[in-house]
Amino acid sequence: MALSNSNTSETLTEEQIIAMVGAASAKQAPGLSMGIGDDAAVLEPGLGKACVTTDLLVEKVHFDLAYITPHDLGLRAMAANLSDLGAMGAKPAFAFLSLGLPKSPARKFVQELLQGLNRLGQDHGLILAGGDTVRSPMVTLNICLIGYCKGYEPILRATAQKGDAICVSGNLGASRAGLFWLQNGGSPHDSTAQKAIAAHLRPLPRVNLGLTLAQNGLVNSMMDISDGLATDLARLCRASGVGASVWSDHIPMAQITRGLAAQAAQDPLDWALTGGEDFELLFTCPPGNLVEIKEKAQKAEPGLAITQVGEITQENGVFLELPQGETREISLTGFDHFKQEPA
Amino acid sequence: MALSNSNTSETLTEEQIIAMVGAASAKQAPGLSMGIGDDAAVLEPGLGKACVTTDLLVEKVHFDLAYITPHDLGLRAMAANLSDLGAMGAKPAFAFLSLGLPKSPARKFVQELLQGLNRLGQDHGLILAGGDTVRSPMVTLNICLIGYCKGYEPILRATAQKGDAICVSGNLGASRAGLFWLQNGGSPHDSTAQKAIAAHLRPLPRVNLGLTLAQNGLVNSMMDISDGLATDLARLCRASGVGASVWSDHIPMAQITRGLAAQAAQDPLDWALTGGEDFELLFTCPPGNLVEIKEKAQKAEPGLAITQVGEITQENGVFLELPQGETREISLTGFDHFKQEPA
Repeated sequence: MALSNSNTSETLTEEQIIAMVGAASAKQAPGLSMGIGDDAAVLEPGLGKACVTTDLLVEKVHFDLAYITPHDLGLRAMAANLSDLGAMGAKPAFAFLSLGLPKSPARKFVQELLQGLNRLGQDHGLILAGGDTVRSPMVTLNICLIGYCKGYEPILRATAQKGDAICVSGNLGASRAGLFWLQNGGSPHDSTAQKAIAAHLRPLPRVNLGLTLAQNGLVNSMMDISDGLATDLARLCRASGVGASVWSDHIPMAQITRGLAAQAAQDPLDWALTGGEDFELLFTCPPGNLVEIKEKAQKAEPGLAITQVGEITQENGVFLELPQGETREISLTGFDHFKQEPA
Repeated sequence: MALSNSNTSETLTEEQIIAMVGAASAKQAPGLSMGIGDDAAVLEPGLGKACVTTDLLVEKVHFDLAYITPHDLGLRAMAANLSDLGAMGAKPAFAFLSLGLPKSPARKFVQELLQGLNRLGQDHGLILAGGDTVRSPMVTLNICLIGYCKGYEPILRATAQKGDAICVSGNLGASRAGLFWLQNGGSPHDSTAQKAIAAHLRPLPRVNLGLTLAQNGLVNSMMDISDGLATDLARLCRASGVGASVWSDHIPMAQITRGLAAQAAQDPLDWALTGGEDFELLFTCPPGNLVEIKEKAQKAEPGLAITQVGEITQENGVFLELPQGETREISLTGFDHFKQEPA
């Protein structure tokens, strides 16, 4: 869809965009005494410990309007943020949207973007409570979310214990496979690659899983996988002052990920370890909790697999154990957003 | 200062930027049980009603690195947000920074930006509690602030009453005068234009004034002036279901604003009404409160003028009363960030 539109009746002024964001937002709701429309939103006290997360998405860096629809862009931006709340075990409550749009944006673009944002938000009880709209040469979205842990503690990444089982939800690398497909000219509508495309464009944040794990006190540490298992597990280990041993042949990968990697002569394990943006949960737990965790996970998110992929060790560093008995250090091999391209 | 630097020893990786933002942030503080370094920050409950505001700033739209230093950029971004908390009468508490930077940003740029952000933040008791760093072709900053009103109500813009005095703090149009100077090739270091330049590059948010007005229950409605008195007063009136009469010869303007306008053959009144980004407070109050307000304001922000510029009326619309007895409607004549340039 064209972002700008030369038919001026279809393009929007600032006041119109503010009005549309206002219509997609709440003025009042439980816990929210003043929503959108003032200098700041006003939240009632007493909802428990608040978890706050913020994420910035920039066109051409995090998404390409050539292959993502405005609806999916809204949905994906919300998914990335909800994933962070899920990783704390917090119940989503309020969203604050900063939206940068080029001059004279098309009404349809803004409408569908807000629909995508709100669709996933509403699935998780989230209310759009405030924001800012500005002009920007690139479409830019910042979402700040507030969620609450009422009567239980949020799960940090700094509390992994030696001997913990390291687990992931779902499968890894599919988002990277979908991105590879799209960046290499594959159609966003291709039916064979659909699962990988959907994993990239419409990821599902594991909010319900995170909530159930935290509320039941079943895990010692948790985070979401946004920059790849290798980098994110290294961050968790560094924060906890521990190390990790990862079993390469246990890392869950979807059939489509292996298939697209074979087609592209890429290593699917590489996609699973460093691909990023899977938005699955990575957590560590006493091995004795695994059975109960899998049962609870089935109730929270039916059909979602939980897989142990290794264990927490005492020595620093994240080591990948390969089937041949080899060991490779994989700490910090993931995506660096600021790495210079080779000249 | 060069944003990128071909000397690679001076440019930063993502982990280095995260570490720098981490060093500028709090891990733990009163009310903050987990600061930067996890999927989300964790705030303790029980601090009162929370006011949340978010603002997005994009290079070339909101600032030009040709004439703003990284330090002043950080300070200005924080000022714009603090101004919103001031306009609610909330006490600043926590900041969440999303930072978009081009590839291989220079260490000095990031360092000075964070210093500018934190300098103004610390003046107001604000703690950097979380954030996100990403790559972006344009320098992009989103700041989300949380402040609290403990034991008193935040002041909304929707509660102006017929007969209220309309007041502004400080003087209007100086930021626009400074921007005009800079955009037309004036030196950022010129001593004669310094007050206007400072008003644009280093505005002072009226947090202490807003706090004292709210805590003492002296005003009926309040907001900050970010898009110009004409547009912002029209918003306040629309939200309150009232109108306004503005006395043109009472609008406070600095000598430098009049001087630069005369030099540029511009109307200083136009700058004061539609210039925007003054970050002064606009509030309405029972006329009988004016004396106490001025006394309290002197204690909160010594030397800051409070000026009545008109009164709230019953009929819709904002009308400017000119000295010749003429009246002009000025609702919504301010800056539209999305207005199309003439073809």
